[in-house]
Amino acid sequence: MVIVLHPSVTPEQMEELKQEIEREGCTAWPTYGTFQNILGVVGETRKIDRDRLLTKEYVEKVLLVQEPYKKVNRLFHPENSIIQVAGRSVGGEKLAIIAGPCSVESEQQIVTIAQQVKAAGAGFLRGGAFKPRTSPYSFQGLKEEGLELLKIAREATGLPIVTEIMSMNMLDKFVEDVDVIQIGARNMQNFDLLKAVGQTNKTVLLKRGLSATIEEFLMSAEYIMAEGNENIILCERGIRTFETYTRNTLDISAVLAIKKLSHLPVIVDPSHAAGMWWMVEALSKAAVAVGADGLIIEVHNDPANARCDGQQSIKPERFATLMSSLQQIARIENRAV
Amino acid sequence: MVIVLHPSVTPEQMEELKQEIEREGCTAWPTYGTFQNILGVVGETRKIDRDRLLTKEYVEKVLLVQEPYKKVNRLFHPENSIIQVAGRSVGGEKLAIIAGPCSVESEQQIVTIAQQVKAAGAGFLRGGAFKPRTSPYSFQGLKEEGLELLKIAREATGLPIVTEIMSMNMLDKFVEDVDVIQIGARNMQNFDLLKAVGQTNKTVLLKRGLSATIEEFLMSAEYIMAEGNENIILCERGIRTFETYTRNTLDISAVLAIKKLSHLPVIVDPSHAAGMWWMVEALSKAAVAVGADGLIIEVHNDPANARCDGQQSIKPERFATLMSSLQQIARIENRAV
Amino acid sequence: MVIVLHPSVTPEQMEELKQEIEREGCTAWPTYGTFQNILGVVGETRKIDRDRLLTKEYVEKVLLVQEPYKKVNRLFHPENSIIQVAGRSVGGEKLAIIAGPCSVESEQQIVTIAQQVKAAGAGFLRGGAFKPRTSPYSFQGLKEEGLELLKIAREATGLPIVTEIMSMNMLDKFVEDVDVIQIGARNMQNFDLLKAVGQTNKTVLLKRGLSATIEEFLMSAEYIMAEGNENIILCERGIRTFETYTRNTLDISAVLAIKKLSHLPVIVDPSHAAGMWWMVEALSKAAVAVGADGLIIEVHNDPANARCDGQQSIKPERFATLMSSLQQIARIENRAV
Amino acid sequence: MVIVLHPSVTPEQMEELKQEIEREGCTAWPTYGTFQNILGVVGETRKIDRDRLLTKEYVEKVLLVQEPYKKVNRLFHPENSIIQVAGRSVGGEKLAIIAGPCSVESEQQIVTIAQQVKAAGAGFLRGGAFKPRTSPYSFQGLKEEGLELLKIAREATGLPIVTEIMSMNMLDKFVEDVDVIQIGARNMQNFDLLKAVGQTNKTVLLKRGLSATIEEFLMSAEYIMAEGNENIILCERGIRTFETYTRNTLDISAVLAIKKLSHLPVIVDPSHAAGMWWMVEALSKAAVAVGADGLIIEVHNDPANARCDGQQSIKPERFATLMSSLQQIARIENRAV
Repeated sequence: MVIVLHPSVTPEQMEELKQEIEREGCTAWPTYGTFQNILGVVGETRKIDRDRLLTKEYVEKVLLVQEPYKKVNRLFHPENSIIQVAGRSVGGEKLAIIAGPCSVESEQQIVTIAQQVKAAGAGFLRGGAFKPRTSPYSFQGLKEEGLELLKIAREATGLPIVTEIMSMNMLDKFVEDVDVIQIGARNMQNFDLLKAVGQTNKTVLLKRGLSATIEEFLMSAEYIMAEGNENIILCERGIRTFETYTRNTLDISAVLAIKKLSHLPVIVDPSHAAGMWWMVEALSKAAVAVGADGLIIEVHNDPANARCDGQQSIKPERFATLMSSLQQIARIENRAV
Repeated sequence: MVIVLHPSVTPEQMEELKQEIEREGCTAWPTYGTFQNILGVVGETRKIDRDRLLTKEYVEKVLLVQEPYKKVNRLFHPENSIIQVAGRSVGGEKLAIIAGPCSVESEQQIVTIAQQVKAAGAGFLRGGAFKPRTSPYSFQGLKEEGLELLKIAREATGLPIVTEIMSMNMLDKFVEDVDVIQIGARNMQNFDLLKAVGQTNKTVLLKRGLSATIEEFLMSAEYIMAEGNENIILCERGIRTFETYTRNTLDISAVLAIKKLSHLPVIVDPSHAAGMWWMVEALSKAAVAVGADGLIIEVHNDPANARCDGQQSIKPERFATLMSSLQQIARIENRAV
Repeated sequence: MVIVLHPSVTPEQMEELKQEIEREGCTAWPTYGTFQNILGVVGETRKIDRDRLLTKEYVEKVLLVQEPYKKVNRLFHPENSIIQVAGRSVGGEKLAIIAGPCSVESEQQIVTIAQQVKAAGAGFLRGGAFKPRTSPYSFQGLKEEGLELLKIAREATGLPIVTEIMSMNMLDKFVEDVDVIQIGARNMQNFDLLKAVGQTNKTVLLKRGLSATIEEFLMSAEYIMAEGNENIILCERGIRTFETYTRNTLDISAVLAIKKLSHLPVIVDPSHAAGMWWMVEALSKAAVAVGADGLIIEVHNDPANARCDGQQSIKPERFATLMSSLQQIARIENRAV
Repeated sequence: MVIVLHPSVTPEQMEELKQEIEREGCTAWPTYGTFQNILGVVGETRKIDRDRLLTKEYVEKVLLVQEPYKKVNRLFHPENSIIQVAGRSVGGEKLAIIAGPCSVESEQQIVTIAQQVKAAGAGFLRGGAFKPRTSPYSFQGLKEEGLELLKIAREATGLPIVTEIMSMNMLDKFVEDVDVIQIGARNMQNFDLLKAVGQTNKTVLLKRGLSATIEEFLMSAEYIMAEGNENIILCERGIRTFETYTRNTLDISAVLAIKKLSHLPVIVDPSHAAGMWWMVEALSKAAVAVGADGLIIEVHNDPANARCDGQQSIKPERFATLMSSLQQIARIENRAV
């Protein structure tokens, strides 16, 4: 941590600040320049409250040197974490391909799609039972019934199921019923929910918030790990920018950044990033080429009649073709789908 | 709603689409141009699923004419809504000034500050009991004890209390204990929470999400109103942009936009927008000059030792001076603080 | 400057880096932590190329302590700069109010508007002769003829004229003809143009680029000052964000930030920020309340027939009413319009 | 074009507006709804000034149906444009790989790098002679001397040269000396410069502005084509977002969007997008996988001593390895490098 002081700071103020820092168990080294004096701080600087320092009129700015996250930090865990879910590994050589409809609509729908994506090579089935929708007048999901239908589809195909939780009140049921609990972008900073899933040992698929920095994203993962749950898969799903042609802007570089900063696996959601079905295949290829550990893709057998997000869903036959292209790209990087 | 069709659309496809729309009870008017054909749709177009239309390969884009919100829409409620809270009105001639510390820390702290902001003219006391923090290692609030201390401060001063809810599980307690339930920026799209507060008749202070468009913000208010609760105060508190000098960018124009689009009152939070105490006074004046219906300001008697957000809190004496400047600006607009 | 090193850095690399820095005349202080080592650098650190340091594999990041601008920095010039233009001061107690049409259209138009804004109290006349337009098919201004008409309007009213330059080739003519040369947002980083106006002593009105950080904005002003011209007025005119309701998002806090960081005067352009005439008055009041040194406002006597930007222009009578409100707000801050 | 009217619009105002539109040669179809009336407009709607319509108090909003660009629009030119430069094609099956240093520094440097990138398979040599730099105190390029050195490198290798123009005054020299004139992100809306290069028939490499929408980017290309020059290569190079970990955010989806909207070839600049050398290879692969028509990559034989952008340059040996990976990915898409 580096504290930049106002030129008018007095030696007494410097000394007082130094002592305050040392009371927290850190060490402070003053450096006197012509126009600015700075105080370098080493030790467990996470304990020092940056905001409190900024209340002092003679403190100009506080620069952080250490990352604020710890358990998710690659610095303290140099190897990739490989998450085990229902007999599958996520984060290793084999890519995790999660596919399925935006929302579960009927037994026939979800079982059919599950069989189709399985046949094409998907490793996991996705499907929303509880749906976060911008409008209160939009379809909100089949809820508990949707969970039951997902279980039937799992039974029929053997694919582990991935579905989104929207409320802590449903946690026990999710822990019992699903294989991977998804926390959506809008809940990335629903801290009570993060703590609650952190107290289970169920795998969590944490999506990046619409306008979350990479650091904030990792801090949300830290909330889960701080409670003891280390089974976390991160998901880049597009960020909000000034560009409105696409629903969001896929931040493909974030995959690289996160893999450098953290040991956790990172997958990509091209469907929500683009919001347009015709972009999904090309973005999936880009995600594999950049080194993502997997993909979560919306696949629907009848997009035009899907109850949500049909515009960004691809059909099973396109998904099958895509899988074979992805296989070829993965091989170049010594990976497989 | 206007549907723009691909130049290659056939008359049969146009007709099929027209019939599909008419089955939803709307009327469709085709217009044939040289390069593009369009279909204008009137009626209760909110029933038509825009995303479903976009799954058709011959649909280029769908432009919305009507706003997607209804109950919060000024179109259907031309007069300003005036919210009654504990004998005070919000949205009328008198500005609502809500002041107090970021978090409740002790009885003495909250009672002292409550007395000071009351003496300076504030109408409401704010104070966090449950605190959303980016880091799991930061102070998370005094929780239930904080609520008790707020009640003591209300008892001592008569000021109604405003505090943030973070979880549905606490709703009953909040309804019983507090005067205004705040929903923070990070929970603006926590739809289960919105629905739950919508089923009470407690006044809700809804903050704009960090990267929520004005339309999405109003849709979240619509969630609350759709459940029956019409007591909503909106709050602009800064949005996330590329500029990092300030914590967020105060979107002062949003006050004007929201007041044009909706009948609900809108207040401004200059403390969170700027993230720096020395900007708070000037931004408060700007908010009153632009026509906001009130302010929510962080005031702390000892910012350097505040347990959170000290860097953006002003001292009671500055707040008192600020109130008299605000009074003067308000008068120019025929309002009062 | 603070250099954060990779944990694997060797003492030899540290020493080598230290010497490299000292060869540039700066002093480097190493600090060894448990997980990270840092090198604090003091002296004329602007000479050290941050990007070059980042090419070393053992350098994690480089944090800048000093601002990269010098002549525009308030640190080295604590008092406000007051710019003299044609007998008027900008940056002092009296606010600079610049008003006029988006583009000069005819002698009658510009002279009439000039007389009207003068009567209402404006201190300067604006009017575009060379117009930057997003579309090549839009009206591009009357060009040289526009400059002649502006001179006639100045002759008729005594108001100094402010108009935008788009190309270095016109500089001699602008220096001769106009009182304030405006550099538009799109040219904020047209460095050749900045250097060229820096070699004159004509007052420059420099607008912030659509997505320029405050630091980049001040660096562009530094380009002008580095060439010797100290007569610079900065202008906040809205930034590009995800919000599309307004044309841009007025960054009102930037006024405060710039006045803290720099000694140069700052004015606000509410017309371009909002892009909607009905927001202009309220945003103008907010700008004065926040402490801007002036305003540049689009005023047109016949907006519906304006050849550009009619949608964001207010009529002369509204402008007159606005001026009297601004006068009242200015007085509260001991200023005047 | 669709004009949405305020509910209070009178039949007389509707009629007046209809006639105004018909005077411009377009046809207007009114549709009367319960709460809103709309006017659909077909014909050559680009002639109608949207902003002028918005000055009318009874016009709520104006939705555009047609894209505002024409010559760059794929609608009117369904096949891909293939640009011929010095015996090479850009936009066809073979990808255009442009490589070289940020800036030309010496004869030895540029010739050596040119030979190395040629040996690795690059098709074009890049190198800056005139450099746009944020700080006036940074190295600004070797200028005319740099152009001479580029010509020597072309002579030595046969690689066509790509370099950035910063001022119209240099245009004649660029036309004579270089093969592809680059217009940088900061000058994307330097309209005088766009018009000037539009009057030549030299190939232009137009980079997307830091915060330019895809539509604005295509409008800038339209400026060039409107003057007669159809030899344009577009370049996505990262946009400015709230995320600061990377220098910019590579908008990989923009490649897909632009190829749908326009017939012009699109390449990607991973070096400027990321701003970090260790991301360049992975982003290059992603760009080829997504379907870009080429890449422009910074390669330097001694990044640590590069006079600019060393931190984002890769070494020739890495570039050679990268080329063989790119070849494999390209083959999957039936393309080649």
